Amino acid sequence: MNLTVTDVVLTPVLVADPPLLNTQGVHQPYTPRLVVEVVTADGTTGVGETYGDTKYLELARPFAEKLKGRRVSELNALSALADEVAVDASRVSGQVDVGGLRGVQTADKLRLSVVSAFEVACLDALGKALGLPVHALLGGKVRDAVEYSAYLFYKWARHPEGVPAEQDDWGAALDPAGIVEQARRFTERYGFTSFKLKGGVFPPDEEVAAVRALAAAFPGHPLRLDPNGAWSVATSLEVAAEVGGLLEYLEDPALGTPAMAEVAAGTEVPLATNMCVTTFAEIEEAFRRDAVQVVLSDHHYWGGLRATQHLAALCAAFGVGVSMHSNTHLGISLTAMTHVASTVPNLHHACDTHYPWQSEDVLTARVPITGGRVAVPDGPGLGVELDRERLAFLHRRWLDDDGRLRDRDDAAALRVVDPKWVTPAVPRW
Amino acid sequence: MNLTVTDVVLTPVLVADPPLLNTQGVHQPYTPRLVVEVVTADGTTGVGETYGDTKYLELARPFAEKLKGRRVSELNALSALADEVAVDASRVSGQVDVGGLRGVQTADKLRLSVVSAFEVACLDALGKALGLPVHALLGGKVRDAVEYSAYLFYKWARHPEGVPAEQDDWGAALDPAGIVEQARRFTERYGFTSFKLKGGVFPPDEEVAAVRALAAAFPGHPLRLDPNGAWSVATSLEVAAEVGGLLEYLEDPALGTPAMAEVAAGTEVPLATNMCVTTFAEIEEAFRRDAVQVVLSDHHYWGGLRATQHLAALCAAFGVGVSMHSNTHLGISLTAMTHVASTVPNLHHACDTHYPWQSEDVLTARVPITGGRVAVPDGPGLGVELDRERLAFLHRRWLDDDGRLRDRDDAAALRVVDPKWVTPAVPRW
Repeated sequence: MNLTVTDVVLTPVLVADPPLLNTQGVHQPYTPRLVVEVVTADGTTGVGETYGDTKYLELARPFAEKLKGRRVSELNALSALADEVAVDASRVSGQVDVGGLRGVQTADKLRLSVVSAFEVACLDALGKALGLPVHALLGGKVRDAVEYSAYLFYKWARHPEGVPAEQDDWGAALDPAGIVEQARRFTERYGFTSFKLKGGVFPPDEEVAAVRALAAAFPGHPLRLDPNGAWSVATSLEVAAEVGGLLEYLEDPALGTPAMAEVAAGTEVPLATNMCVTTFAEIEEAFRRDAVQVVLSDHHYWGGLRATQHLAALCAAFGVGVSMHSNTHLGISLTAMTHVASTVPNLHHACDTHYPWQSEDVLTARVPITGGRVAVPDGPGLGVELDRERLAFLHRRWLDDDGRLRDRDDAAALRVVDPKWVTPAVPRW
Repeated sequence: MNLTVTDVVLTPVLVADPPLLNTQGVHQPYTPRLVVEVVTADGTTGVGETYGDTKYLELARPFAEKLKGRRVSELNALSALADEVAVDASRVSGQVDVGGLRGVQTADKLRLSVVSAFEVACLDALGKALGLPVHALLGGKVRDAVEYSAYLFYKWARHPEGVPAEQDDWGAALDPAGIVEQARRFTERYGFTSFKLKGGVFPPDEEVAAVRALAAAFPGHPLRLDPNGAWSVATSLEVAAEVGGLLEYLEDPALGTPAMAEVAAGTEVPLATNMCVTTFAEIEEAFRRDAVQVVLSDHHYWGGLRATQHLAALCAAFGVGVSMHSNTHLGISLTAMTHVASTVPNLHHACDTHYPWQSEDVLTARVPITGGRVAVPDGPGLGVELDRERLAFLHRRWLDDDGRLRDRDDAAALRVVDPKWVTPAVPRW
């Protein structure tokens, strides 16, 4: 058994994304993702996936070179290795990420987002080499299936006219009735039993009405509302007072730890976040101020599957809940999420996933979601197989792009229909 | 490869321990330890080690039965499995442990101390089955050797007359000169470059004098003093003012988080602990109050090697240092400590080990300490081999004991020479 990395293949792709609305704008018709393949001396290949914007590629390329000659079992060394690669400072915004709303963009978070894809690829290769599923490399699953939540979005029926795009079959959802109809389709297609509404798109009253409509249509089912920090503290408290009783948690109502702490102090509704606590460095202040009650982990930017386990243990120690955030992603990441989620004892909320919105994937088979759950694969590695034709097709799309879509920018995507649109100042309401 | 556990063998032993003094009394001439062997369907055997007192055996026996039929890779399930076994409540003191000074004894901590031995044994078996060292199962080493500290003790030359005991060759150390001489022998025999003095034995002035003598004899070498919580806050602050500048850290000067927080607020000397933060549940209060600056992990009572990694990640997130505590232990545990310590990036202090005090072991070869370091084994599993003759010999000693030594009690051991001795009330000074 030779676990030494002899080759690393990076394949940026553009994958179809429906016109999903959020407080910054709308999803582009195609979103960049990066597929990482790590090949060992024995010819075993492991795959991973992360954000595919230019800044991630700029980090991934030198990192891939440094990985060669290392063993896929050397996971603890990946972070130190990542410290040796740097992204051009001009690429680091220091502001809330313009494409994904995953908190403030920092050089470290970019690095960790890259590391995570390589960690997953190494775990996949290691698992294949050893004949063990990735969850076994993470100490073993404690559940056989992982529950996910239906991720409801306000959306247009189609991308703007004249813009190349794939047509989705979900239709428009721009009011409470549309959201309820979307939720119904989610339950029919995938059996989801909990629902998260991406808010921050319309004035809070309309989103409150949508939550009420969901509660009426699906009584007793867990509901969540996530305006991505678009509200003031006062608005957040008003919404919490109005529909807090219907919510499993309210996600990032206001932006940043101080504002979240103010909201938390004024309501009994648990607050969840994937924006003010997105790195280990942000935990201390948030926990000291009791600003959040549920941390939504994301193995991409927390630095991998093992970092996710550390985060979960940390949350358990502080009596803070844990679940998982999602951004536009493919089946590799859904499977990676499923493996690590299966190992976390204190995962008491259904995880988020965008996967049903992605009609395209790079795998030979789509990851099945039934009863709102993904079964934990027990075969070697992640248990996924690349469809090389599809991968080549989606990579070709990336190659053919003139550069406009290679860096996701939801505000720019909205400017196509509203030339005066700028990312709204926060708080928006 | 069949990783299913088909047999578990528990072997309690009594191992020779020199007459080392601490604030509660003196080490017994023999200390109980438990050796755990986990055997898989393929015939692979993994070994682990933990405390061997009756209460641990009472938990380990039913736990061993429950482990059969599980796979050695199912590490995350061990804690839940442990919840199914309970120790007789009368065995849980709820007070500071009488044999080992590892904080307050609780049912959970007893359970975790048992789980840890099985986790190590499972990791050893898994590593052997896969052909990987334990550190690789923990994400891989980030250093090739782990630094340990010389663990200096006030001690008698021999155990009380008339008490069966093995004679050690360290001589007495009951004053500053004796401690310096002991330190010299530690450096000669093992190459240690940092020193920890177990205090709380003599009035603080005498121990301050010993620290000064060590600093004079070994200028520039890291020094630590650990009175096991024997001092008042005022005394702690006086000692910190007197010799704080000579210390890498002051360990558990006062007992409990509130007292430690008071001390911490009054000195610049970092405070370390293995008494007020000994479980994940104790972290929040201690960190919120900035009561400790270094947590001394102990994989035995934190619940295993992976829990130790979680703890280290948690400490990193809060800017708290991490190192390792030690109690009387054998080579199995020293090797387990070395594996996990090799994987922790933020381990910036030499670990403690009692190992040089243990003339007896259950391995075919003693674990070498050279230059104050233990090399991280790269062979499959832990990289240790049981000496079955020695194991049987030490087990026979346990069988032959009339019960007096099977539950370590340092106060009882001191009563042999001082019938009026009781565990001193705290603060002692």
